[in-house]
Amino acid sequence: MLKAIYPGSFDPVTFGHIDIIRRAAALSDRLVVGVLVNQGKDPMFTLDERVDMIRKAVPDLENVEVKPFTGLTVDFARSEGANCIVRGLRAVTDFEYELQLFQTNKKLAPDIETVFLNTNLQYAYLSSSIVKEVASYGGEISEFVPDFVAECIREKLLK
Amino acid sequence: MLKAIYPGSFDPVTFGHIDIIRRAAALSDRLVVGVLVNQGKDPMFTLDERVDMIRKAVPDLENVEVKPFTGLTVDFARSEGANCIVRGLRAVTDFEYELQLFQTNKKLAPDIETVFLNTNLQYAYLSSSIVKEVASYGGEISEFVPDFVAECIREKLLK
Amino acid sequence: MLKAIYPGSFDPVTFGHIDIIRRAAALSDRLVVGVLVNQGKDPMFTLDERVDMIRKAVPDLENVEVKPFTGLTVDFARSEGANCIVRGLRAVTDFEYELQLFQTNKKLAPDIETVFLNTNLQYAYLSSSIVKEVASYGGEISEFVPDFVAECIREKLLK
Amino acid sequence: MLKAIYPGSFDPVTFGHIDIIRRAAALSDRLVVGVLVNQGKDPMFTLDERVDMIRKAVPDLENVEVKPFTGLTVDFARSEGANCIVRGLRAVTDFEYELQLFQTNKKLAPDIETVFLNTNLQYAYLSSSIVKEVASYGGEISEFVPDFVAECIREKLLK
Amino acid sequence: MLKAIYPGSFDPVTFGHIDIIRRAAALSDRLVVGVLVNQGKDPMFTLDERVDMIRKAVPDLENVEVKPFTGLTVDFARSEGANCIVRGLRAVTDFEYELQLFQTNKKLAPDIETVFLNTNLQYAYLSSSIVKEVASYGGEISEFVPDFVAECIREKLLK
Amino acid sequence: MLKAIYPGSFDPVTFGHIDIIRRAAALSDRLVVGVLVNQGKDPMFTLDERVDMIRKAVPDLENVEVKPFTGLTVDFARSEGANCIVRGLRAVTDFEYELQLFQTNKKLAPDIETVFLNTNLQYAYLSSSIVKEVASYGGEISEFVPDFVAECIREKLLK
Repeated sequence: MLKAIYPGSFDPVTFGHIDIIRRAAALSDRLVVGVLVNQGKDPMFTLDERVDMIRKAVPDLENVEVKPFTGLTVDFARSEGANCIVRGLRAVTDFEYELQLFQTNKKLAPDIETVFLNTNLQYAYLSSSIVKEVASYGGEISEFVPDFVAECIREKLLK
Repeated sequence: MLKAIYPGSFDPVTFGHIDIIRRAAALSDRLVVGVLVNQGKDPMFTLDERVDMIRKAVPDLENVEVKPFTGLTVDFARSEGANCIVRGLRAVTDFEYELQLFQTNKKLAPDIETVFLNTNLQYAYLSSSIVKEVASYGGEISEFVPDFVAECIREKLLK
Repeated sequence: MLKAIYPGSFDPVTFGHIDIIRRAAALSDRLVVGVLVNQGKDPMFTLDERVDMIRKAVPDLENVEVKPFTGLTVDFARSEGANCIVRGLRAVTDFEYELQLFQTNKKLAPDIETVFLNTNLQYAYLSSSIVKEVASYGGEISEFVPDFVAECIREKLLK
Repeated sequence: MLKAIYPGSFDPVTFGHIDIIRRAAALSDRLVVGVLVNQGKDPMFTLDERVDMIRKAVPDLENVEVKPFTGLTVDFARSEGANCIVRGLRAVTDFEYELQLFQTNKKLAPDIETVFLNTNLQYAYLSSSIVKEVASYGGEISEFVPDFVAECIREKLLK
Repeated sequence: MLKAIYPGSFDPVTFGHIDIIRRAAALSDRLVVGVLVNQGKDPMFTLDERVDMIRKAVPDLENVEVKPFTGLTVDFARSEGANCIVRGLRAVTDFEYELQLFQTNKKLAPDIETVFLNTNLQYAYLSSSIVKEVASYGGEISEFVPDFVAECIREKLLK
Repeated sequence: MLKAIYPGSFDPVTFGHIDIIRRAAALSDRLVVGVLVNQGKDPMFTLDERVDMIRKAVPDLENVEVKPFTGLTVDFARSEGANCIVRGLRAVTDFEYELQLFQTNKKLAPDIETVFLNTNLQYAYLSSSIVKEVASYGGEISEFVPDFVAECIREKLLK
């Protein structure tokens, strides 16, 4: 039985994240999307905004919950009764960083597994920061994020 | 619900494969290990021997079956009613090859997912062919494969 | 002025190759697709068949020619009066192999440049050998190659 | 016909950049070197200084212009009537980052191509930041940048 | 004769560093561990603390000295009469960065060699920053650093 | 004290190999170049020819011996009283293969170390097989191998 968490910053959620959430949800009995309280970083969106945007992006998935978390990912997994951490893999540099996280988590919590889903090709180039950068120059971002997210980004940039 | 297949040549099964089987089985409702009929390659062990060695290596896993297969991996997944293909990832070169397989399978069968498990560090260097090469020079292989597999390899090499 | 060659085996031409040919042609004054006489390899299609299939795949490109060649790629470039070799890049492992070719060619012919085009994401997983393998198992290949190429592959496999 | 831009920070221009400019110019009908107005970064040299140093480094190339730009690279390419973005590739990590840029640009402007030139081996280790770091410790940098650039760096460091 | 330096920040020393020190010491006639005065970075431990922790971690190695240094690594190597720089390699991304350092050092000091030791698998995921991050969330770090180092980290975090 | 072996096929020795031999010899008290009896492969040169060409290429290195060997590399190292295996690293794909060899050897012989030297940039593209391929098409190989080796290759190709 797969009870998984999918942790990340989601600042903001993109079509790449949404694709992973849908595919992971289809395999899991229960999936908790964990939105990280970024320490030190200066996010564009508040924690509440980031949680709300994900919820709004996948309203139809009944076995998915979205929750904020802080601290170690493995501690969040345990508190949710999950046996698995889901991660998306875009490229080789992702892979090496993820490998390092995996090994550390395996030492900290040998009973919690990590599984990787490859990002679908059409989203392989996407990252939240690229979307924000393109938007900051007035570029079109409707192929990268849902319309309501694009709207939220434009509002933030106007301030 | 995770109903997975884990395809491979397993010529022969190593501690690396066994680690992936145990970890995938812990997440899956049902796991079918699929032993590929190698076309063109000249395996050390017959298909039956390879299937038997895997069964003997994980006798305690009640949700795991071992079966031979030929043809496309996605067709085997479908015939088993699986929604997922499990693959082990050892290194960056693995990753790129697996990415290519993943994309092809996604085109052929969009409804079947692929998930990756990282090989545990202590088995990251292992491959069936390295085990056979070390054994062919009389090297010690008890850290690489179960004792009964080591014995089978030595018997084959004597012929 | 860009006078380029695009060398390869094209056994057979795929949508990935065709994408590179079209994009390279749009930048070049003249582009010669060079079909390599494979030494040692056993191709599915004869040299003539491979040349013909490429011609049939891009009949509208007026600045493109398709020619067979043997020997060193830089010698073929020189004989065509080209100042540039075009190569497609799919992945990191491609990149390292191409880097090695590039350096060797640069030593052999410092006046001939190599430029790389990234394979479009939707074709990043494609290779002639994967197409042939999928077809050999009766898999659907209409998303990988033009219909007339798919037909030619099926005919070869029947023999 | 190749009308290309070569964008970058060039803070300052190195022998690696100059090599790419010369090789790209040889293939292009027109090449515009685009010097990026860095947002957020704190460059060693002003935009004007960076533009001037590049002009001074390749005074003999008649089909090359050097211009500052801000905003999206594809918008700069369009405003220059270019059909192509030129990028240098040094290593695998470069490659993955460039692949991400390429895909984003392809979404934003499907009509504008990206071509890659491999950095020549003798400059493969070079980056503007390494040159500045070596100079800050009093190391010799005459193998990394033209003499007049080395002089400019030393002047900046004295301030 | 191998007279080597092993440079780094060691903020703080981990089991991964200690493994490289012991293995390099076994091959070297003399090994100097060079602790870098970080410019710009804000280390957790002072230079003296970092030097002391390494000394305390390998008290039995008679051919090893630990010294602070600033400036270019090759200058430090020369001042110690060393013919070699030792570096640990964990992963592909490490490798490319190290390759760049190697080439720069080779230009600056052709007489000084760089040799690489692969990090042992059980420490391949380790970095000083991961240790500090895990500790900051109250995670267990006794598998990552010696007990006295773990104690020093906890003291720093209490402040 | 560094007593090393440098194993390989050397079919034939190139400037890349010679560079590694000279640099490893400068660090070692004793270096044994081990020429592998290739099983299964069909070398261009006999074992004796390959040993002789290496000897002829570095006649001035007094602490270097050249010897054929068969079997496991760690067994050869032990029989020579060596504490170290030297390997050249050209690229990322090399690195991953070498990592696998390293881990296997570490399991088989924990007391024998492996150190890596980066191939100098000017030889980073070189391999024995590329040299033979270029020569087979009548390409110039004097930048890749010593003159007497080039002569031996041409003689073999005439047969």
